[in-house]
Amino acid sequence: MKLMRVTDPEEVFKIINSHFEPLDSKSIFLEKAGGYCLAEDIYAPENIPDFNRSTVDGYALAARDTFGSSEGIPAMLECIGEVPMGQPAPSINPGQCCLVHTGGMLPEEADAVIMIEETEVAGSMVQAFNQVAPGENVIHRGEDLKKGDQALKKGHHLRAPEIGLLASLGLADVKVHRRPRVGFFSTGDELVDYSRPNLKPGQIRDSNTPALLYLAGQAGAEAQYGGILPDKFEVFLEKSRSMLDNVDMLVFSGGSSVGTRDYTARTMQELGQPGLLVEGISIQPGKPTLLASCGGKPVLGLPGHPVSALNIFKIFGQALINRLSGKENKTLKPSVKATLSRNISSRSGRTDYVRVKVETASEEVKAIPVFGRSGMLRTLAEADGLLVIPAEKEGLAAGEMVDIELWE
Amino acid sequence: MKLMRVTDPEEVFKIINSHFEPLDSKSIFLEKAGGYCLAEDIYAPENIPDFNRSTVDGYALAARDTFGSSEGIPAMLECIGEVPMGQPAPSINPGQCCLVHTGGMLPEEADAVIMIEETEVAGSMVQAFNQVAPGENVIHRGEDLKKGDQALKKGHHLRAPEIGLLASLGLADVKVHRRPRVGFFSTGDELVDYSRPNLKPGQIRDSNTPALLYLAGQAGAEAQYGGILPDKFEVFLEKSRSMLDNVDMLVFSGGSSVGTRDYTARTMQELGQPGLLVEGISIQPGKPTLLASCGGKPVLGLPGHPVSALNIFKIFGQALINRLSGKENKTLKPSVKATLSRNISSRSGRTDYVRVKVETASEEVKAIPVFGRSGMLRTLAEADGLLVIPAEKEGLAAGEMVDIELWE
Repeated sequence: MKLMRVTDPEEVFKIINSHFEPLDSKSIFLEKAGGYCLAEDIYAPENIPDFNRSTVDGYALAARDTFGSSEGIPAMLECIGEVPMGQPAPSINPGQCCLVHTGGMLPEEADAVIMIEETEVAGSMVQAFNQVAPGENVIHRGEDLKKGDQALKKGHHLRAPEIGLLASLGLADVKVHRRPRVGFFSTGDELVDYSRPNLKPGQIRDSNTPALLYLAGQAGAEAQYGGILPDKFEVFLEKSRSMLDNVDMLVFSGGSSVGTRDYTARTMQELGQPGLLVEGISIQPGKPTLLASCGGKPVLGLPGHPVSALNIFKIFGQALINRLSGKENKTLKPSVKATLSRNISSRSGRTDYVRVKVETASEEVKAIPVFGRSGMLRTLAEADGLLVIPAEKEGLAAGEMVDIELWE
Repeated sequence: MKLMRVTDPEEVFKIINSHFEPLDSKSIFLEKAGGYCLAEDIYAPENIPDFNRSTVDGYALAARDTFGSSEGIPAMLECIGEVPMGQPAPSINPGQCCLVHTGGMLPEEADAVIMIEETEVAGSMVQAFNQVAPGENVIHRGEDLKKGDQALKKGHHLRAPEIGLLASLGLADVKVHRRPRVGFFSTGDELVDYSRPNLKPGQIRDSNTPALLYLAGQAGAEAQYGGILPDKFEVFLEKSRSMLDNVDMLVFSGGSSVGTRDYTARTMQELGQPGLLVEGISIQPGKPTLLASCGGKPVLGLPGHPVSALNIFKIFGQALINRLSGKENKTLKPSVKATLSRNISSRSGRTDYVRVKVETASEEVKAIPVFGRSGMLRTLAEADGLLVIPAEKEGLAAGEMVDIELWE
C-alpha cells in the first residue's frame, strides 16, 4: 500500500502562487468591472474635483472678511446672489459673499464658506456671527486627486469605492484581468444526474456539481459543466483533454474510490507538463486532494465526500480562481469570535476544519460543533461556519474563545 | 433652522424589520437558487442515502466474522467478488465478504467494512488482520436524512451546502423569496453622467451610481437606473412615482444640498403611506439619511457625499435588500483583529465608521486610519475596511485591539 504524500496547506498556497499566473487582460465597461482586478495603472486625467467646492450650505466669502466677527459683533457682507448648482460661480469683491449649496462651486475670490446656521440675512446683507478660517468648508481643486496622480495600481481589486473613484475620473472602461473559465467533471459509475427522480440501488445523485458551480460563480469564475465521467481511463483523458482546450482550469469531483482517484491522477500526468504537484493535503476533511499544473493550467482533483469536496474547493479552488483573476489571496480571514461549547480533539500535524453552529444567547456567542461524517451534507448545511484548528494544536477545550469563519 | 431628528442605527434596523416584509415567492431552478432564501419547508422525499454505503475501499462483511481476529491470527473470509459502483450488491453468506469501493453499496447481510489496508488476499480468500465493529466504515440508509425528515426550514439562506443537500434529494426546483428590483435615481443639477469626458465649471460626474448599482447587485438585487433628476420637485415626484410602480424599493442619491434633500423628503411623503420614517441617523459618515415606507415599499434617501452614500447603502441599503429577500440580517459581523496605529477621537452618542488600511508587518496586524473628508472616494478606495466606534465610546487609543470589517 503506497502512502499518500501530503502537503501542508500553506505550502499549497505557495505552489498556487508560484505555478500559476493571472490571465490575460481585456477591456470592460466600468458598470461590469466590479469584482475584477485592474490590469493597468490608473492615473487621474484631470483634477478631482476640478473646482473649489463647498461642503455645506452657506455663503462663500473671503475668510479675512469674517476675522474678528462674533455673536455680538457680526461681520456684515453684501450678498450678490446665489451660485446655481452645476454652473460657474460669479465673481465677488472684498466685503461681498454669495449663497452656495453643498457641492456648489466657489467664486475665484472666495476661500471659505460660512455655514448658513451661523448667519442671518438682513435685506441684501448677510450677518456672519462667526469667523471662518481660510479653506473652511471647502474641498479644494485637486484635493481628492491631482491631475497625473496615480489613482489605482495595477492588480487592485475593484470594489464599490474603486468603481466610484473610476467613475469620478470619467473612465467608462478599464483594463482588467479576465476571469477564469472553469470546467467541471463529475466522476464515478455510481453517480447520476441530481435531477433524476428514482434511483436504483447503489446509485447516488451528483449533489456536488450544482454546489461547486455556485461556489465557482461566487468566486467570479465562469463555470462549465462537462457531465459525469464513467470509471474508464480513456474516457477521462479524452473528455478532459478536449475540455481543457476551452477552459483555464479544470476540476474533477465525485470519485472517492481509490480507482477513480488513480484515473484522475493518471489523467493529470497525461494532460500536460509538469503534471501532478500535490497528492494530498494535511487537512481534515479533504486530505485526498490532487492538484496539477497541465501546461500552465491548474487541474484540481477534489476528494469524493461532499463535505470534503466543498471545503477543499472553498479553500483551494477559490484560491486558484483568485490567482488566475489577479486577485491577491489575503492571509487575513474575517471571522466572528465565539466561546467553544465543548472539547474537540484534533490530530497534531493536520489542520482541522470543524463545522460549527454559532448561537447568540444572553450576550454570549457560542460555537457549537456539528459532528457527522464528511459524507453528510446536512451537517454542513446546519453549520454557520468553520472553526480552524491549526496543525500545531492537539484540540481545543470547552470555554476557549475561538474564531469562526462564516460560510456565506 | 430645523434640527434634524436622528435615529439610532439599531433602531433603524428594527424599523426595517417591522415595516417591511419578504417579497412573494417564485419557483427557481436549483442551479440558480444560490443566494436566495427558501419560501417553503423542505422535507426529505426519500432516505439519504437510500442504501448502506461504504466510506472506504475494503471488504464488506458481517462484523462478527472478524471478532477476535488480529495481526497474528487473522480471520479468513471467502471473497465472492466485487460490488460494481452504482449497482446493487450481491448477497453474502456467513464467512463470506465482497470487495467494495468507497461509496459502494453493502450487501444486505453485511454490517461493516474492513479497510483494504487491514487485509491480504490469498487466492479466493481474504485475511482480515483486525476486527471491526458493527457499523464500522458504513453510512447507514437514512443516516444523512430519513424520509420525511425536515431537511431545511422556510427562510433558510441557500449557500453551497444547501444547494448540495437539495440536489442530493433530487429537487430540481425550489420555492424561494423573489429578490427585490431596486430603482436608483441620482439627484442634483450639478451632476452629469459619469462617462462625460469634459466637464464645465461647477459640474461633477455622477460617481455614485455605478458604485451603488454594484453594491445592490452584490446584495442580490436587480438594479434599475432611472437617470439624473434635476432639482425640480414636480419632476422628482412624477419620475419616482412611475419608477416605484415597477420596483420593490427606491433609492435617491447625489443631492447633498438642503434643497435637494427637501425635495427628496417631500417626494417620500407624497409617494405613499406612512411616508417618512427616519430623517437622520446618528452615524458618521452618513447622518443625513432619509428612509420612508411608501405603500409598503422602502424608499431610501442617501446622503450626498460619496463616501457617506456608499457607507449608508452598504449598511442600511443592503439590510433592506436582505429583508425583502427574506434573508436574516445577522448581528454577527465577521471582522479581522488589528492593533490601532494611532488615537482616534469620536463623539459620544454617535456611531463612527472609520476607514482603515490593514497592514501586516512582522507578526502584527495594524489598522491605520485613512483620514479625509466624506467627499473623497479615494480615501475609501485606499481603505481595506471600516472600524466601528460604538456610540458609547469617546474614541480609541493607539495600541488598542480593534475589529475591522473588511469591505469586499
